[in-house]
Amino acid sequence: MTAYTAPIADMKFVFEEVFDFYSHYEKFPAFEEATPDLVDMIMSECNKLCESELAPLYQSGDKEGCHFDNGVVTTPKGFKEAYQHYIEGGWHGLSHPVEYGGQGLPQSIGLIRTEMIGTANWAWAMYSGLTLGAMNTLIEHGDEQQKQTYLPKLTSGEWGGTMCLTEAQCGTDLGQVRTKAVPNDQGSYDISGSKIFISAGEHDLTENIIHIVLAKLPDAPKGTRGISLFIVPKLSINEDGSVGEPNQVSCGSIEEKMGIKASATAVINFDGAKGFLIGEANKGLEYMFTFMNTARIGTAMQGVCSSELAYQISLPYAKERLSMRSISGTKYPDKVADPIIVHPDVRKMLLTQKAISEGGRAMIFYAGKIVDQLDQAKDEKEKAKLDDQLGFLTPILKAFLTELGLESANSGLQVFGGHGYIKEWGLEQIVRDARISTLYEGTTGIQGLDLLGRKILLQRGRSLKLFAKEILTFCKNNSMISDNEHKRRMNKFIWPLSKAVVNWQQYSLRLALKARKNRDVVGSASVDYLMYSGYITMGYMWAMMAQKANERIAEKPENIEFYKAKVRTAEFYFERIFPRIKTLSTTMMSNPKSLMRLEEDSFSFL
Amino acid sequence: MTAYTAPIADMKFVFEEVFDFYSHYEKFPAFEEATPDLVDMIMSECNKLCESELAPLYQSGDKEGCHFDNGVVTTPKGFKEAYQHYIEGGWHGLSHPVEYGGQGLPQSIGLIRTEMIGTANWAWAMYSGLTLGAMNTLIEHGDEQQKQTYLPKLTSGEWGGTMCLTEAQCGTDLGQVRTKAVPNDQGSYDISGSKIFISAGEHDLTENIIHIVLAKLPDAPKGTRGISLFIVPKLSINEDGSVGEPNQVSCGSIEEKMGIKASATAVINFDGAKGFLIGEANKGLEYMFTFMNTARIGTAMQGVCSSELAYQISLPYAKERLSMRSISGTKYPDKVADPIIVHPDVRKMLLTQKAISEGGRAMIFYAGKIVDQLDQAKDEKEKAKLDDQLGFLTPILKAFLTELGLESANSGLQVFGGHGYIKEWGLEQIVRDARISTLYEGTTGIQGLDLLGRKILLQRGRSLKLFAKEILTFCKNNSMISDNEHKRRMNKFIWPLSKAVVNWQQYSLRLALKARKNRDVVGSASVDYLMYSGYITMGYMWAMMAQKANERIAEKPENIEFYKAKVRTAEFYFERIFPRIKTLSTTMMSNPKSLMRLEEDSFSFL
Repeated sequence: MTAYTAPIADMKFVFEEVFDFYSHYEKFPAFEEATPDLVDMIMSECNKLCESELAPLYQSGDKEGCHFDNGVVTTPKGFKEAYQHYIEGGWHGLSHPVEYGGQGLPQSIGLIRTEMIGTANWAWAMYSGLTLGAMNTLIEHGDEQQKQTYLPKLTSGEWGGTMCLTEAQCGTDLGQVRTKAVPNDQGSYDISGSKIFISAGEHDLTENIIHIVLAKLPDAPKGTRGISLFIVPKLSINEDGSVGEPNQVSCGSIEEKMGIKASATAVINFDGAKGFLIGEANKGLEYMFTFMNTARIGTAMQGVCSSELAYQISLPYAKERLSMRSISGTKYPDKVADPIIVHPDVRKMLLTQKAISEGGRAMIFYAGKIVDQLDQAKDEKEKAKLDDQLGFLTPILKAFLTELGLESANSGLQVFGGHGYIKEWGLEQIVRDARISTLYEGTTGIQGLDLLGRKILLQRGRSLKLFAKEILTFCKNNSMISDNEHKRRMNKFIWPLSKAVVNWQQYSLRLALKARKNRDVVGSASVDYLMYSGYITMGYMWAMMAQKANERIAEKPENIEFYKAKVRTAEFYFERIFPRIKTLSTTMMSNPKSLMRLEEDSFSFL
Repeated sequence: MTAYTAPIADMKFVFEEVFDFYSHYEKFPAFEEATPDLVDMIMSECNKLCESELAPLYQSGDKEGCHFDNGVVTTPKGFKEAYQHYIEGGWHGLSHPVEYGGQGLPQSIGLIRTEMIGTANWAWAMYSGLTLGAMNTLIEHGDEQQKQTYLPKLTSGEWGGTMCLTEAQCGTDLGQVRTKAVPNDQGSYDISGSKIFISAGEHDLTENIIHIVLAKLPDAPKGTRGISLFIVPKLSINEDGSVGEPNQVSCGSIEEKMGIKASATAVINFDGAKGFLIGEANKGLEYMFTFMNTARIGTAMQGVCSSELAYQISLPYAKERLSMRSISGTKYPDKVADPIIVHPDVRKMLLTQKAISEGGRAMIFYAGKIVDQLDQAKDEKEKAKLDDQLGFLTPILKAFLTELGLESANSGLQVFGGHGYIKEWGLEQIVRDARISTLYEGTTGIQGLDLLGRKILLQRGRSLKLFAKEILTFCKNNSMISDNEHKRRMNKFIWPLSKAVVNWQQYSLRLALKARKNRDVVGSASVDYLMYSGYITMGYMWAMMAQKANERIAEKPENIEFYKAKVRTAEFYFERIFPRIKTLSTTMMSNPKSLMRLEEDSFSFL
């Protein structure tokens, strides 16, 4: 019953009008092929793939799940064929280097594809998503021979890739990793250990799977300083680049999970498997951090995807389902009852989904622009600045958008009443699938610590200051102008936003001072601080969207209703969602004592 | 992997110390058997049943689900045996009239059993829970012959019962019901129609199932004024009370659901089935309202159950799972890492679960006391007042506790990180099972309208005034006392609580005035208003619990740590949860325009 159509009108609004990506592309010679015609074509063709092939497999994939039989994993019916069409269409290497067979388009264009396929079928999209993670690692840190050996087949999608980090005893705390890498006499390493929660760790979509594995050398320093990164192919590669003998890599089992059941989550056992060191020994964690930003933005996207899909299903239901009469008077007297979209609380749930989907999309593309700039930056200082900026936004995007994506999916389910609980409609699946997003790639708690601990306190608020300045400049530009009509229309956004941004800086400073005296202030405030930061960031997006929409409305375009809806949704956001910062600013500033002083033995008296 | 032990220490604290139920029972001759010895025995015996029989079936019941074969429903393995032991132990008729074979104990004692069996295994508990709904209907509105025919077997649990309200086209809007009841020449009615979402509608636990069915007579007025209530047994009853021929009642299918999979949710078809009118014709909806309070408090309980079970599983995990070091310095140097309970954000998630479980339990027992009083009230005026009081609290309890129960279950899952997403631990099941609770028995949106529309506006705030007065008296008694030490300890609760209660009344009045001009104010504010009311109600509970705990601490009892933990949790509640009223008071007072002015066609531009 789930169907998906890419929200191309909204994507184009964000892409072209709000962030003016074409002027942005013109700045970089490498992006000369990223023309409006090409992007329009990509949007419409990717939408076709999603509508006709991926969305129809969303519910059937969940129902069937993955099959495990003696180490062999079979994906649900139709997954393999859809994957073939996806790689044949060249979708996989869209924004990867031409020299390895990619199309060399900007990463921001890759995000269009990622949103579309992720919304149509997140579990299916995970297979290629993980491969992108492995590719990015090799591009950043592999040597030339490794790149030549693996990247062409990974870029075409003929081979898949994984990231093997987690072990049974550790996920976040990777210093506890026990997988060992012992140098052998062939110049490579014998890798032994067991990894769990390996997404796309084993499946039938590709000829080979290239595992990127965290392991420790025999003489490695303790903890995270002793982690190295290895390439471990499932099947070894012959001299001529073809696939050879099986490596000592096996899939022990796949997990039974709450959702994303069509995505195989594997236990992968390495029993003296041949592995190849990436970069220098003991620098594995450092290498991981450099690509973590992109991986986490990919996960942030799941929030937008869950929200968008839930909205696309709950909105038509709200227009069709007839129940009760509008409390302010019958709206459809010819029907047995009014459609539930007349009821204020149902509208609140729909608008929440709309505000999160569209606001979240804007956040992702805003970050996508920085990713492009970072890719093309030549100057080291400029690069470092952009990296800081992206690193500051990343935990906000990852945790805030996945938390709100889950909320939005739940709102969509709630619109259906009891019917939302039944498998038929697909809403309950979206909620189950979305639930993983606040857990993997670093939980919300971990993102909070990354933001407040690393990106604010360690950096002494450098990135925040820049971002706050940008928002305040936007606010100033829209309130210090001569056009009184525009000013009036924008004030309702500009005032609360600029006030919150000023407070954001003050609260950050106060937290920094408090944390000097009591380190627990960081963990006590972090998640609320992150969510507070998220609502402001999304508020900035909605203010920018409202500003652009108001400009267009003044021009009275043909599709004026689209722009009016944007302004209405911005108003909804600022009146109904943005005030959440009131509670958050109280709780994040509250004394950590209320969390810390209960003795461990006093949590329960069973 | 899930195990459950009833939190008897906490139950006794609420039951005996906070609400002093034994003094309460002494006021009523009917409750003379409700002695401390008996209640202690009930708690410990019911705990045994839950620990040894029901909790072990929690995960297996979900995994196996119910089986449907040609109209026959089979419950998961072990359900039937556990049900036999439950009815043989006399648990079912605990607080039902002695004249029909019950034990005649107060309903508040029945709530102890309901919480225990519901936490151990909610899906299993639904079968007997629905029977209680049918029994209450017959007790309130059945004639003597109907009572004699059905109640003894329902009270013993030999027969089951259901409530057949919902049809495919309507759940909330029961005026749309199409099921017909045509008088026949035997003085009964031929019932025809199809009902959906019938919990416990068909199963193998009992010899017979007594359906209470909403249907319309041929000459019935339109809408909800034309609804009548009928008894429709699955198997007809012979003159001698034994079970006879099958009635024209069949189960068409059972639903595939997100959770509570061990609870059969049936489509029940009536094809000219013989039915018996309850009470007068066309008064069905009115009859339903009279027992809806108890049914909804039963559902509110699910919030406490989900929260308690999640907490019982996530707490030991947080003490065992080793990850990272405490940011304020290593706590367990002999271990490879500190257990995650040292981290402030993990503590926040645990304390959230604790505050919701214990605060919710107090709310339920607070209402239980009123239920007892209402049961025993002889004076009509007194009865009406108690009914108002309960009717005011009911939507708050139902919506607020189920929303928070779901939050708490999600917090428990989050404590586990990625492991929470795996079926093994049971957390993901608790989240799936809890998700139904904000939907059935009236969605959160419907409860919001009931509270603000019916219980505040229509009653001109009568019940709110009484409740607010009670809370303010409590606050006054705890701040105007000579014991300075006690006053100091209580101020942190009394001040924010009394301020919020005063605002609550003012906001209510302002909403009433606004609603006169614009009816959409009601639906626009209702859910936020309900949640606001919920946080205050739970705040009152925590203040009462802190007061009692502080009193006991002053006496330096043996188990002083229990009371200290109570005070700490109250502090956590007021510092971290209660401030949510700040946002809610803003959003509930905001103009309905932000919800209403978006045109229906402008919600999407796909």
